[in-house]
Amino acid sequence: MSDVVVGVDLGGTKTAAALVGADGAVGPVRSVPTPATAGPDAVLDAVAALVRDVVAHGGTLTAADGTTTDVTSPVAVAGLGVGTAGVVDTTTGTILSATDAVRGWAGTDVRGGLRARLGEVLGDGPVTVENDVDAHAGGEVWLGAAAGGDSALMVAVGTGVGASVVLGGRPLRGAHHVAGEMGHQPSPDAAGLRCGCGRPGHLEAIGSGPALYRHYLRLGGDVAVADTREVCARAATGDEVAERAVRESARAVGRCIAGVVTVLDPAAVVVGGGMSQAGPLWWEPMVTALRAELIEPLADIPVRPSALGPVAAVLGAARTALAGRDRP
Amino acid sequence: MSDVVVGVDLGGTKTAAALVGADGAVGPVRSVPTPATAGPDAVLDAVAALVRDVVAHGGTLTAADGTTTDVTSPVAVAGLGVGTAGVVDTTTGTILSATDAVRGWAGTDVRGGLRARLGEVLGDGPVTVENDVDAHAGGEVWLGAAAGGDSALMVAVGTGVGASVVLGGRPLRGAHHVAGEMGHQPSPDAAGLRCGCGRPGHLEAIGSGPALYRHYLRLGGDVAVADTREVCARAATGDEVAERAVRESARAVGRCIAGVVTVLDPAAVVVGGGMSQAGPLWWEPMVTALRAELIEPLADIPVRPSALGPVAAVLGAARTALAGRDRP
Repeated sequence: MSDVVVGVDLGGTKTAAALVGADGAVGPVRSVPTPATAGPDAVLDAVAALVRDVVAHGGTLTAADGTTTDVTSPVAVAGLGVGTAGVVDTTTGTILSATDAVRGWAGTDVRGGLRARLGEVLGDGPVTVENDVDAHAGGEVWLGAAAGGDSALMVAVGTGVGASVVLGGRPLRGAHHVAGEMGHQPSPDAAGLRCGCGRPGHLEAIGSGPALYRHYLRLGGDVAVADTREVCARAATGDEVAERAVRESARAVGRCIAGVVTVLDPAAVVVGGGMSQAGPLWWEPMVTALRAELIEPLADIPVRPSALGPVAAVLGAARTALAGRDRP
Repeated sequence: MSDVVVGVDLGGTKTAAALVGADGAVGPVRSVPTPATAGPDAVLDAVAALVRDVVAHGGTLTAADGTTTDVTSPVAVAGLGVGTAGVVDTTTGTILSATDAVRGWAGTDVRGGLRARLGEVLGDGPVTVENDVDAHAGGEVWLGAAAGGDSALMVAVGTGVGASVVLGGRPLRGAHHVAGEMGHQPSPDAAGLRCGCGRPGHLEAIGSGPALYRHYLRLGGDVAVADTREVCARAATGDEVAERAVRESARAVGRCIAGVVTVLDPAAVVVGGGMSQAGPLWWEPMVTALRAELIEPLADIPVRPSALGPVAAVLGAARTALAGRDRP
């Protein structure tokens, strides 16, 4: 087997890692809780320990076609790729800004911190760091829902609305490191609604999971309903207000996706995140609204749910490391 | 002087061409009326004659820094780059679809037709064909309003609303050859207004020049006012309805630009086309609406009028030819 790297998906709750071969064969995924409230050093310590653990165990790498390769410990690792929450300067491997999902994460030199902790494991191999949605998208274009094309728009709809634009097989980073901040697009369906960024009318204020819940309450929904999941459950049992909230939130997402597709003309659209798993009451109006806006040449663009599940970001992060450097 | 190519800007009214050096030095621009109603063969004949004329005359090429180089006839031409109205398959140099600006243009093999007519002039040099807004954008990123960065969003607001996304110095073509069709973005300001594509709610239905005129009439404007130009003139003299129509149309454009900037994070925004020349009553609300939507990392993005004027598309088309092939 040629180069093997470690791919890491670092989230606010959990950090997962696995060995990944140059052909995309992936080893057993190991994960640990992210010590998200203990500060950046504790997080980097936990990532480093997880990487050492993955490397120490080796194991069997399974490719998409089912073929397997055993990797014997100690593994000679050719690099480390990390996908992480937050806005990342991929040229330096530093977190530019982040929510409180990981306390104090903004400003952290992830590349330097991991290289210092893992020098004996990594040698001169590259350490690449990128946003987790970009890593997820990179994985889906490599081996998942958008495999076979070299471009895709990946949209993640969950606590927020994030996106990644993959062109020429690689996620677009942007001139200010914030390409893909789709949640802050002006949305025809969000008039008057305040976004988390403080401005009114952005997609996230109607399209995110929490926004769907607020929309349900605004439509006169039952205040005893606790959260988005419960709204979706009620919609599935025929609750008209819940069904309307789900439909209108999904439609807002679909319309904004159409606007991006119109400008980028990607080979495929991949939709992931928690809302993409909410079932046809969300998925169908999202796709219907999306297609209703598209001019003819785009009418048949594939719109698919993400296919790789939790391992997508591990794979995408690994692919960036396999490329040997971050390509800005 | 190293390679010299011919750049052509083929529009529905006029076709312009000039010699362009590898450093962007440009010779005298010659132009002829486009025989737009006489069919594709007549148009290709006219382009070929214009190219021969440019090559036969040679002349003095002037670089951006003012240095000049004399090119003596007969010029050894290294290639031909064409920017043209219509949706172009840049890999084949064929027109996929087009408005009636050039009758029968859809389906025309521009590359093959020009190579057949200009074989003795071009030898083995490349013939590249691209959309005219892409060519315009390529010129602005090379030597104009977005020079110095390697990415830009160029928006052309005139009879329609077109755009080009330049990344890594080159216009994005798209998986279906229609990247940049920004006029067909869902717009928060176009609710209920029918777009030329037949769908309601797209940017072009409020943001184009003709849409601005219709908006003025819809707001109760004077039916004696003949066109967009006159609406703008009235606005400049304090006519409140005209001023509102201009402002609201400009705001729609600015908002949609913000949505694209949010996803692409380009180094700069360039706005061209007739409306960009309409003065501060259009430009200022456009920029204000744009900036109002942007998250902090994007707040200071430069927003500039196109700087090269009519020669932009000639230069951009030439640059694509200088690259030796079209890069998909």
